[in-house]
Amino acid sequence: MIEKILTTPSLPTVRRLPTYLRLLKELQDEKQHYVSSTYIAERFQLEPIQVRKDLAAMGIVGQPRLGFAVTELTCAIMQFLGWNNASEAFLIGAGNLGSALAGYSGFADYGLNIVAAFDVDKSKIGTRIHDIKVFPLQKLPDLALRLHVHIGILTLPAAAAQTTTDMLVQAGITAIWNFTPVKLMAPKGVIVEKVDLAASLAVLSRSVKEKLPLKIAQGA
Amino acid sequence: MIEKILTTPSLPTVRRLPTYLRLLKELQDEKQHYVSSTYIAERFQLEPIQVRKDLAAMGIVGQPRLGFAVTELTCAIMQFLGWNNASEAFLIGAGNLGSALAGYSGFADYGLNIVAAFDVDKSKIGTRIHDIKVFPLQKLPDLALRLHVHIGILTLPAAAAQTTTDMLVQAGITAIWNFTPVKLMAPKGVIVEKVDLAASLAVLSRSVKEKLPLKIAQGA
Repeated sequence: MIEKILTTPSLPTVRRLPTYLRLLKELQDEKQHYVSSTYIAERFQLEPIQVRKDLAAMGIVGQPRLGFAVTELTCAIMQFLGWNNASEAFLIGAGNLGSALAGYSGFADYGLNIVAAFDVDKSKIGTRIHDIKVFPLQKLPDLALRLHVHIGILTLPAAAAQTTTDMLVQAGITAIWNFTPVKLMAPKGVIVEKVDLAASLAVLSRSVKEKLPLKIAQGA
Repeated sequence: MIEKILTTPSLPTVRRLPTYLRLLKELQDEKQHYVSSTYIAERFQLEPIQVRKDLAAMGIVGQPRLGFAVTELTCAIMQFLGWNNASEAFLIGAGNLGSALAGYSGFADYGLNIVAAFDVDKSKIGTRIHDIKVFPLQKLPDLALRLHVHIGILTLPAAAAQTTTDMLVQAGITAIWNFTPVKLMAPKGVIVEKVDLAASLAVLSRSVKEKLPLKIAQGA
């Protein structure tokens, strides 16, 4: 029984979905055909009502006594996230971090495919980092248009982050994965997802230096 | 004028420090000797009182009319974070992501030095990833003790994350950088800093798939 329920998915809901997917994959491997929201909730220290809401946001409700069909739920989440079709992304900044990310084949599990890299450094342009070709940054708008790419992974120096973001937005990029330490300004409709490695490292080094058990603000 | 003020640094304060450091470095390059909390606040869309509190937590107060001495402030933050002395860290999991992080020389800027990698995969043990030697996981407790390493970077498969964390804690690791999608349990006194790449990617793919401008919960 699949019912389409009109709910707007919240950002915390979307963030939890990969965790559910991981459990569903485990259950599939164990030949389990159904799973209850109570079981999912227990595994991840969530409230069952929260889990049911998350799944309802994807148009899936459970069957009484049986729970959720594992295969159906997996397909629904994959489709909801667009992970059954690979999303193509541009890597902007072919330095150390960009190169590290380009070499991370784990992204393929999440349907992310880096199709081209960009840099302003002439010594990098024309080379390949982990098989991904590096183009001059000014070619980006043209390639974004031709390849219909809407995701940009930002791994360039902080000083160039905002001006490059403005250029990306102009070029039709609507989702930016920001690995720079800069708090980027982007117009409404463009999502910026920040991974601040420097801030994370500050927390770790400080806690080790002082042996102070700092309180964790975000969920560990 | 340096006054030692006894305040407990909050986690958000610690997370902002690398941003301040970056600005201070810019100012040093521009031969600016003083900076006001108002200027810092404006640059990062913060409240001036917040900036003053952050800096006071490190025992630094500004001088009337002049503001904060750039060099002094830089040293104080570096010392506060322990970034003037390199922190040594272990990498646990020598797979794709581990290898990508091992190759990221940017960590050196933040005083992080990966001294050894660990894995259970026999084909990896004894090899080197970006010049870092891969040891069998069971050697970790002994090496942690001998090398006084307290930071562990977790880049192994989700299924092994919790049991390995328990082992790390036993071995005296007090700061864990968790790149796995697992919500780890650790005793009080051990800090777990999570970087959830899968959750970030879920947000990006979903926003591109639906062209829905999802609200951003955390600061972009």
